[in-house]
Amino acid sequence: MKIILIGLGTVGQGFLEVLQKKADILKTEQNLMPQIVAVATGSRGFLADPDGLDIPQLLESIKKGNLSHYPQKDGLDRNFADAIDLIRRVDADLVLELTPTNLQTAEPATSHIQAAIDSKKHVITANKGPIAKHYQKLMQAAKNAKVEIRFEATVMAGTPCIALGRELLAGCEIKEARGIVNGTTNYILSQMENGLDYAAALKQAQDLGYAETDPSADVEGWDAAAKVLIFLAAFFGKEIPLDSLDVTGITGISAEDIHEAKTAGERYKLIATISPKGGSVKPMRLPMDDPLAHVGGATNAISFKTDLMGETTLIGKGAGKHETGFAILADLLALHRKA
Amino acid sequence: MKIILIGLGTVGQGFLEVLQKKADILKTEQNLMPQIVAVATGSRGFLADPDGLDIPQLLESIKKGNLSHYPQKDGLDRNFADAIDLIRRVDADLVLELTPTNLQTAEPATSHIQAAIDSKKHVITANKGPIAKHYQKLMQAAKNAKVEIRFEATVMAGTPCIALGRELLAGCEIKEARGIVNGTTNYILSQMENGLDYAAALKQAQDLGYAETDPSADVEGWDAAAKVLIFLAAFFGKEIPLDSLDVTGITGISAEDIHEAKTAGERYKLIATISPKGGSVKPMRLPMDDPLAHVGGATNAISFKTDLMGETTLIGKGAGKHETGFAILADLLALHRKA
Repeated sequence: MKIILIGLGTVGQGFLEVLQKKADILKTEQNLMPQIVAVATGSRGFLADPDGLDIPQLLESIKKGNLSHYPQKDGLDRNFADAIDLIRRVDADLVLELTPTNLQTAEPATSHIQAAIDSKKHVITANKGPIAKHYQKLMQAAKNAKVEIRFEATVMAGTPCIALGRELLAGCEIKEARGIVNGTTNYILSQMENGLDYAAALKQAQDLGYAETDPSADVEGWDAAAKVLIFLAAFFGKEIPLDSLDVTGITGISAEDIHEAKTAGERYKLIATISPKGGSVKPMRLPMDDPLAHVGGATNAISFKTDLMGETTLIGKGAGKHETGFAILADLLALHRKA
Repeated sequence: MKIILIGLGTVGQGFLEVLQKKADILKTEQNLMPQIVAVATGSRGFLADPDGLDIPQLLESIKKGNLSHYPQKDGLDRNFADAIDLIRRVDADLVLELTPTNLQTAEPATSHIQAAIDSKKHVITANKGPIAKHYQKLMQAAKNAKVEIRFEATVMAGTPCIALGRELLAGCEIKEARGIVNGTTNYILSQMENGLDYAAALKQAQDLGYAETDPSADVEGWDAAAKVLIFLAAFFGKEIPLDSLDVTGITGISAEDIHEAKTAGERYKLIATISPKGGSVKPMRLPMDDPLAHVGGATNAISFKTDLMGETTLIGKGAGKHETGFAILADLLALHRKA
């Protein structure tokens, strides 16, 4: 399987590290020998080698600053106009679109994915933008081109919520899904329940690297809202604009609210809700017999209500370099199983 | 997809009811049109029709007592020596082995599956015996014959624990899995925590139909142990005899034990543990931050510890006519996706 990698930030590096670690076992147990035949970065150069690039040297050169540190050899091509030029010209089975998410424009990821589809290459992406904003158009184009688009990494890292809802539960009708899909806010709420006030809990989340310096995308619910759009697309084929969702973050939750809930035997969680009618993100007080009530810290979860199976809940990691790298590997294995 | 159904008890009827309910959506959304071309029962007769049997009439005739009530028509064949004869002679893509489990002999299910493999038919089974006892032999035979054996229904009904561990987490190394895989004992322990003593909780489980009149297979841990063997086979390719497992049931757990655990902020659960080294079934006191501690009543769960994803937990229904019927449908859809 020949792979083009677009974007070599944390996710791309995490994937390469996972791939390196798993190379032997993928070969012996799954008969899968993935080969990175090209890499495109935003500002750190391009590389293409039809014989396959060396993963340790790729990681080493990016650590040194850019791909110019990758050793020269015959057949190595560094000259491409841009990622789209590279996607079109390099012979490969699969494009990994791992550039950073932009929820306003969904670019350049959408154009990368479109170029991959146009040149009959499968796509695996970790980028929320194209799936949240252009699902139907991209899926239709992929269907016409007889290629697949997979996007497990866009929500809950490698915890396989997309494959569970779309594939394992495919024979069920999903009536509703509720998720804890933002680890930062779940960590803050957990720490508030342990006695911290909002500001102190946020500070702690920032110190641990869970929350960014500007935490608004997390605490105001917009990261969770983007994931609601992805779930709506993935499970119901629905595509709606981000600003039409009902979104409330956790900034209005006080220490007293948390205490009051606790006294009543309940617990605040920031819940993403998805149904065929639409979606929302809201802090909700859950009773203790709700499986989502016990999802603590930076853990994520999703609970599906279906016609045949009642409630099915999946709990796991929602972030991390290797966890997200694994999501991409899982999609790769799913493609391989069908090939 | 032409299907032979072996066994038309609760599981077989549940599957047919699910299939009937889902026929339209399977056709439009999955392009799957399953056709039941033959049915074999232990003592209620045989039916084969290359044009496909009518599901409502099948269900109706079995409700009346046996398949002789199925209306006669041209091309309908009722004359077979036994299920193996039927499996060999009827043209089909897939055999559903849905006869009752016998953990001592694993028969007649193992012979049925072997006959299906010999005649190049895929197999989906809900029968624990063949998977717990003859996994390696059957999988090797299936591989040689280029057919698949799937068995989601053998553990946790349609909650897709087998597919999660074998397929969605395939790129991870499973270090250990812990499960609550027997709903009856979990219900009894939950009710004991609510204040009932063991005898009263067991009586309630029997009244609700969770526990059988002779509850020993459940309460002594043997049902869970059979599932441990299936997990060992499915996740590690390991095959060991049932009596070499370390198995303790819940009959030794007293109201005082439960109370003592509760006072310490813990909770008793009957935990099935599986690792590359082997498996066990034991009542264990879990701290409240263990995701399995909150799996109450007749619900089932499994928690995987893996190298890349830390802990991934799946919680859902572990029994039920339509829940088990769905497990078979899920396997059928998985075969269809690969076809």
